[in-house]
Amino acid sequence: MNSRRNFLQKMGVSALALKLAPITSMAADNPEAIISPYDGPVLRVAIMGIGTYGNIVARALQASTKAKLVGVVSGSPAKVKDWQTKYGIPDKNVYNYDNFEDIKNNPDIDAIYVIVPNFLHKPYVLRAAKTGKHIISEKPLGMTAKEAQEIVDGCKKAGVKLLVGYRMHFEPKNLEIIAMRKAGDFGKIKYFTGNGGFKIQDPNQWRLDKAKAGGGSMMDIGIYAINGARYMIGEDPIWVTAQEAPKSDPVKFKEGVDETITFQMGFPSGVIAQCLSTYGMNNVDRFLMIGEKGYAELNPANGYGPLKGRTHKGDLKAVSPPMQQTIQMDEMAGILLEGKTAVVPVDGEEAVKDAKIIDAIYAAVKSGQKVPLKL
Amino acid sequence: MNSRRNFLQKMGVSALALKLAPITSMAADNPEAIISPYDGPVLRVAIMGIGTYGNIVARALQASTKAKLVGVVSGSPAKVKDWQTKYGIPDKNVYNYDNFEDIKNNPDIDAIYVIVPNFLHKPYVLRAAKTGKHIISEKPLGMTAKEAQEIVDGCKKAGVKLLVGYRMHFEPKNLEIIAMRKAGDFGKIKYFTGNGGFKIQDPNQWRLDKAKAGGGSMMDIGIYAINGARYMIGEDPIWVTAQEAPKSDPVKFKEGVDETITFQMGFPSGVIAQCLSTYGMNNVDRFLMIGEKGYAELNPANGYGPLKGRTHKGDLKAVSPPMQQTIQMDEMAGILLEGKTAVVPVDGEEAVKDAKIIDAIYAAVKSGQKVPLKL
Repeated sequence: MNSRRNFLQKMGVSALALKLAPITSMAADNPEAIISPYDGPVLRVAIMGIGTYGNIVARALQASTKAKLVGVVSGSPAKVKDWQTKYGIPDKNVYNYDNFEDIKNNPDIDAIYVIVPNFLHKPYVLRAAKTGKHIISEKPLGMTAKEAQEIVDGCKKAGVKLLVGYRMHFEPKNLEIIAMRKAGDFGKIKYFTGNGGFKIQDPNQWRLDKAKAGGGSMMDIGIYAINGARYMIGEDPIWVTAQEAPKSDPVKFKEGVDETITFQMGFPSGVIAQCLSTYGMNNVDRFLMIGEKGYAELNPANGYGPLKGRTHKGDLKAVSPPMQQTIQMDEMAGILLEGKTAVVPVDGEEAVKDAKIIDAIYAAVKSGQKVPLKL
Repeated sequence: MNSRRNFLQKMGVSALALKLAPITSMAADNPEAIISPYDGPVLRVAIMGIGTYGNIVARALQASTKAKLVGVVSGSPAKVKDWQTKYGIPDKNVYNYDNFEDIKNNPDIDAIYVIVPNFLHKPYVLRAAKTGKHIISEKPLGMTAKEAQEIVDGCKKAGVKLLVGYRMHFEPKNLEIIAMRKAGDFGKIKYFTGNGGFKIQDPNQWRLDKAKAGGGSMMDIGIYAINGARYMIGEDPIWVTAQEAPKSDPVKFKEGVDETITFQMGFPSGVIAQCLSTYGMNNVDRFLMIGEKGYAELNPANGYGPLKGRTHKGDLKAVSPPMQQTIQMDEMAGILLEGKTAVVPVDGEEAVKDAKIIDAIYAAVKSGQKVPLKL
């Protein structure tokens, strides 16, 4: 890619960013981010699946510096027309679910971001990997650890890099807490609570269909508490116990679709995490970590909006971006194009660990027993 | 008691209250509390055990209107002298552990507040009950549910009223949340977390001696989360599960003395409570209750100092008293002398329920199994 093209690409992105959001305090702190043109490599992304979350990522990409939306895979021609207009996607970068393997012949696409219902992650990622392009998959990577591992293996075999859409791994306030933990500000970590959830509405959505989602709230929001506990504490759990609350609505929450699960994870250092995953209530979105010398809390902890948090030293200082996915995509570009390393890994192996924990939580709910883990 | 004596008693108390603390906003809101003399019955209390907490209750009683410290039972003559001077206790109201049954012949004492290490609750309450005076016992009432029940039965047999020192049952911000829950402000309750604990220091104190305490943190601070969950949710649990974290210090936390236990309680309506009881860390003292329409939180939730809290409607408005025990003693006087009813019961049966839950938590830690409860 020549540097003139990069420059123009970058200028376009900046202009869009300025249109999208007023100059943020982040930008104000670092005027260079707006003033000096970005001159590095840019990840050219095709989004597969243009539902609600696909739209969010597309909007976020408008403000990214290192990543750019250039293509789309969709089964809805009408929606695609709209996207082409909105995001300036040329016809030659538009694919459907029958022909998207042809992306392998498209030199203007570097990566495919798979944003489809959970049950389609495996078949679509495995097909997409055959294009030789980098893959980003939404989480959960697989509906089971076995599926997640098959996806990882498939991408390895195809020789493509696989990342998973862990937006919180790049979220500034989460990273600020992790940096403080690594600097010893909390002392030895002793306890963690992670609550995630919301009251789910439409009973007919795929997220409430076991065959399509692989489970219930745990597959969607529970994973934030699981994953959050791991990166906040900085360890992987060695056991889980779990309890399921009675379902409030048998029509909404059918067999195999969990509404509310409480679960506990034990870590090698002795920390116990108590977590909540729920589709049955709002106002639960909170993380709390206790160490020997202090504490950290986030509330809200998982939402798309700006997070808030504090530690024993006062309010968190890191500035929340207008859209978390903008930073995610910039950072993923660095990983895929420049071999950068994420503070908290976002690779397939990370997702396999989360999937193993989810498998264990479901098993613990069924058996009522503590389930040992080896990640 | 004639009304002149009541008037003088009351005036003395008010003068002390004014000396103790500057006019609180509570008093400022209700000038009558200071200006008009209290003319009702006054509970004349002898405190048994003048350790740290006995001292706190004695100080708190100085500001009570309906209760007054008049006597003491102690095995430390030197300490007693100091108390007599500080609190104006006449020689005739001073007893030791050999002769305190003689209180039965003392018409100037209405109640005995037993504030001794846990293993002495049963023998001392049963002996004190024989005086025919009302009994207030510190919590946990017994070291096991069996002991607690024996204490309840003993008091019943002796024909005396038994109350348990649940100071939080009268704490204004807790009561504000309970009133809001009863008014439907939170809708159906869905979830509760109660964390209680602190980093315990002196390894030689009786609280770290299984024979004297009956256990570890659960017997001291865990009970706040258990009890708090019950009165906040307004139900009694039907099962518990529990996990014990590895001990950080085998010298401090010997066999049978728990440092940190996480436990879960299931309630008839489907609510699950996740709780923490710990002697191993600070900054944990928090309650959170989630309902369908909103939430309530307290942080700190259990300390002696003023509690802080908020709901989805904003900060809690109830004014924290300078000392919670002042309100507790005033309210207990109303219960014992005027047959008033507490919003949250403080009787022996309440304590037996908590003791049954503690027994079940310890059993669940050992077995790793869910333990069903019938309270």
